[in-house]
Amino acid sequence: MTGITKAACIGGGVIGGGWIARFLLAGIDVSVFDPHPEASRIVGEVLANAEKAYAMLTGAPLPQRGRLTFETSLQEAVSDADWIQESVPERLDLKRRVLTEIDAAARPDALIGSSTSGLLPSDLQRDMKHPERLFVAHPYNPVYLLPLVEIVGGEKTSKATIEAAMERLAPIGMKGVHIAKEIEAFVGDRLLEALWREALWLIHDDICTVETLDDVIRYSFGLRWAQMGLFQTYRIAGGEAGMRHFLAQFGPCLAWPWTKLTDVVDLDEALIEKIGKQSDEQAAGLSIRALERIRDENLVGILQALKAGNDGKGWGAGQLLKDFERSLWAAGGGKTTTADPSGPLKLVETKVSPAWVDYNGHMTEHRYLQVFGDTSDALLRLIGVDLAYVEAGQSYYTVETHIRHLGEAKLGQAIHSTCQILAVDEKRLQLFHTIRDTESGALLATAEQMLLHVDSQAGKATPAPIAVLDKANLIAAAHAKLPPPDGVGRHVGQKR
Amino acid sequence: MTGITKAACIGGGVIGGGWIARFLLAGIDVSVFDPHPEASRIVGEVLANAEKAYAMLTGAPLPQRGRLTFETSLQEAVSDADWIQESVPERLDLKRRVLTEIDAAARPDALIGSSTSGLLPSDLQRDMKHPERLFVAHPYNPVYLLPLVEIVGGEKTSKATIEAAMERLAPIGMKGVHIAKEIEAFVGDRLLEALWREALWLIHDDICTVETLDDVIRYSFGLRWAQMGLFQTYRIAGGEAGMRHFLAQFGPCLAWPWTKLTDVVDLDEALIEKIGKQSDEQAAGLSIRALERIRDENLVGILQALKAGNDGKGWGAGQLLKDFERSLWAAGGGKTTTADPSGPLKLVETKVSPAWVDYNGHMTEHRYLQVFGDTSDALLRLIGVDLAYVEAGQSYYTVETHIRHLGEAKLGQAIHSTCQILAVDEKRLQLFHTIRDTESGALLATAEQMLLHVDSQAGKATPAPIAVLDKANLIAAAHAKLPPPDGVGRHVGQKR
Repeated sequence: MTGITKAACIGGGVIGGGWIARFLLAGIDVSVFDPHPEASRIVGEVLANAEKAYAMLTGAPLPQRGRLTFETSLQEAVSDADWIQESVPERLDLKRRVLTEIDAAARPDALIGSSTSGLLPSDLQRDMKHPERLFVAHPYNPVYLLPLVEIVGGEKTSKATIEAAMERLAPIGMKGVHIAKEIEAFVGDRLLEALWREALWLIHDDICTVETLDDVIRYSFGLRWAQMGLFQTYRIAGGEAGMRHFLAQFGPCLAWPWTKLTDVVDLDEALIEKIGKQSDEQAAGLSIRALERIRDENLVGILQALKAGNDGKGWGAGQLLKDFERSLWAAGGGKTTTADPSGPLKLVETKVSPAWVDYNGHMTEHRYLQVFGDTSDALLRLIGVDLAYVEAGQSYYTVETHIRHLGEAKLGQAIHSTCQILAVDEKRLQLFHTIRDTESGALLATAEQMLLHVDSQAGKATPAPIAVLDKANLIAAAHAKLPPPDGVGRHVGQKR
Repeated sequence: MTGITKAACIGGGVIGGGWIARFLLAGIDVSVFDPHPEASRIVGEVLANAEKAYAMLTGAPLPQRGRLTFETSLQEAVSDADWIQESVPERLDLKRRVLTEIDAAARPDALIGSSTSGLLPSDLQRDMKHPERLFVAHPYNPVYLLPLVEIVGGEKTSKATIEAAMERLAPIGMKGVHIAKEIEAFVGDRLLEALWREALWLIHDDICTVETLDDVIRYSFGLRWAQMGLFQTYRIAGGEAGMRHFLAQFGPCLAWPWTKLTDVVDLDEALIEKIGKQSDEQAAGLSIRALERIRDENLVGILQALKAGNDGKGWGAGQLLKDFERSLWAAGGGKTTTADPSGPLKLVETKVSPAWVDYNGHMTEHRYLQVFGDTSDALLRLIGVDLAYVEAGQSYYTVETHIRHLGEAKLGQAIHSTCQILAVDEKRLQLFHTIRDTESGALLATAEQMLLHVDSQAGKATPAPIAVLDKANLIAAAHAKLPPPDGVGRHVGQKR
């Protein structure tokens, strides 16, 4: 997979800021040009939200964050970038002018994407010298969590450009979807627009309030669409008779005089005020910041749920997350081999996510073991027992664990784990882990674990290969110089 | 909350069957009338899916399943029901005739809901003697998992009926949403219809395929809608400037000539065949049964993610699930006090859910501790330490755990846990749990745990009240006669 080496973002609002966060967190350097006096504050806020979300989204090792620079001219920002993303306000004349400037200052092989949510790429590329490398790359808010990018080419866009754009999105965790023909508003906003018009009529005519309308969506088809969208859902609804039968049955309803879509609602002051008032009531005092946080945490939870779907193989956006993590592990797994074995290895850094706490906001019991398990996994990668090793048929299984709870981790708290190797033989690996509060270093929990090297197919213990044992012994030799940790060898209820 | 005592379902197709499953799993007896020769098979299949989903959805104690009877006449089915749900095919003349028959045979105080997805309640109730108790109760597929029910009254429907209907849905885990004015297709199908029309045009015009269209939805706004719907999402998009500002900015776009909604697409054979073919490709060989299973497991995962949202307080459909579980605990918590203490107590029965397995389909390490934790919780409820007790400020905290892994649990496997009390003193509770395969009884894992009685506010150990200790000692005395379980008092790595 070919990745982006250096990105430039022209425009750093909510959408531009979301792109910036995507690039930076994937380890890509980004230069930004935005004349808005508050650009750096806005980008900083989006980036802070993105980092919070990523800390909960994945335990995979994120690469070193890319370098962020703000440039004083568009030309400086784009000069050495190989992906340039334009996210300026939605006006054809403005976008066309900015894109033509980018075109003139960029490297000839740089890809140029526009975040436009509705303008035609053919119109945007009209005045460019190298129009073949311009395409629409339309993302969705929040850009750092929602994976979709609609990729749309104009009349002069080359096939190679579309292919290159699609290929470069996967390494940053995004899903490029190629729209075959350019039309205004592409596909996503077309669908949204249709539903939005109907929704405005329902409010206008007092059929329901905005809260009722949102409830209708989020307690029903919203839950279906998050995973399957429209057609696959209806395929199921058609049952064994199939999609063609479903359509034939459903067809006639289309002509029923249900909707008012032939008219456009007049969004006058009275309707704006009505919706504004209902929306205030619905928010029930939650600020935009609070709603954003809840939204992001829910998105993290939904993405993680979909990652576990399809028998653990991942489904939809969750399968994408799984692929993204796989590439992070592949890239970052090696990094920790530099971990200093003169003390316990610091292996997992994370934040207590909303899915991990009880209604008192305390991390639940089994989540401690989850972090300990992740710690063992990190150590195993360090000694060469990575995904490829496991897929080839051998692995270490945990056979015994002893946990002590010494403190409490709370929602959002930054914690980290350490690992000390107590003993290694050809089949067994005895480990001692801790979980600590990152800020104070206070000890929250410890775990002693015995792992057994097994042939997964046969389900039997088998000696680990020399290469693995050598690496384990190297760390174990260094750790042998450390004092035995407090609590080693304890049984439950033992006197101190 | 007033619940339903006896339900009758007229029509047992996919929707009727979904209602039947909802009622039965909430402990309500259901009598069914459906002249279709295969009705009992179809209902049986829906019920099997529902039971599989519920086993993964919640660890809360489900009530004894209600009794299901198939009657040979509509009159017999409805005679003693207090909620009658009509789910016959969508034809006004048929529905009107069936509802009028129900009206004549039902108890005068019975509520009558129609599952119609579009007909007006005023039209449905025209010929009824007691039209005031007829309302639309429009659910979404799969009815046993999606909580939404649109409640719509006709001209003659009484306010008391609407209130009673709304109130009776919560105890079966559903969300009644009252639509203020009756219109054809109500709110949900209006919105779906608008989007569906637009989607058909996009396929018709070859802008994209059905798979691309579904991807556009499920990698972007589908993920937002599952939790917040439309208006609350746009409220966030408006940022600090607020909803009114957002609307004022967005308004003009409405008049742009984007959509083709003024025309109705001709769903002719060519278009049906095109969509059918694309849908086959998208399904990539997955049968309807397989897609149904994936859908249900994903819905379970999304609902559980939303249950953890909003700092563990639950959000949207997840908050509803939390409320539903609370009522199950309140109702079912007492049931297990009859557990026989002459042996280890059988406390948790569950199935290994998709979110619990790794990519090999094996239950991950920390999920064993989750089941052990649930087992401790079940024992605590048994000795009076329930939700109310914890909310009043005292609880038992786990301070130490020793786990042995002796076998592997796999996706979908039925497992159960047992608990033996090893020792009780005024502050401490020492327990020994097992997890076993339900079918063979084979031992998969054991856990020894030490729990400490604490004052949550002060964060300090404190003696448990006599009432709690008495109940614990009663079980402990019986368990003292059992042999000490294999593995008690082990430390990690101890020789056998």
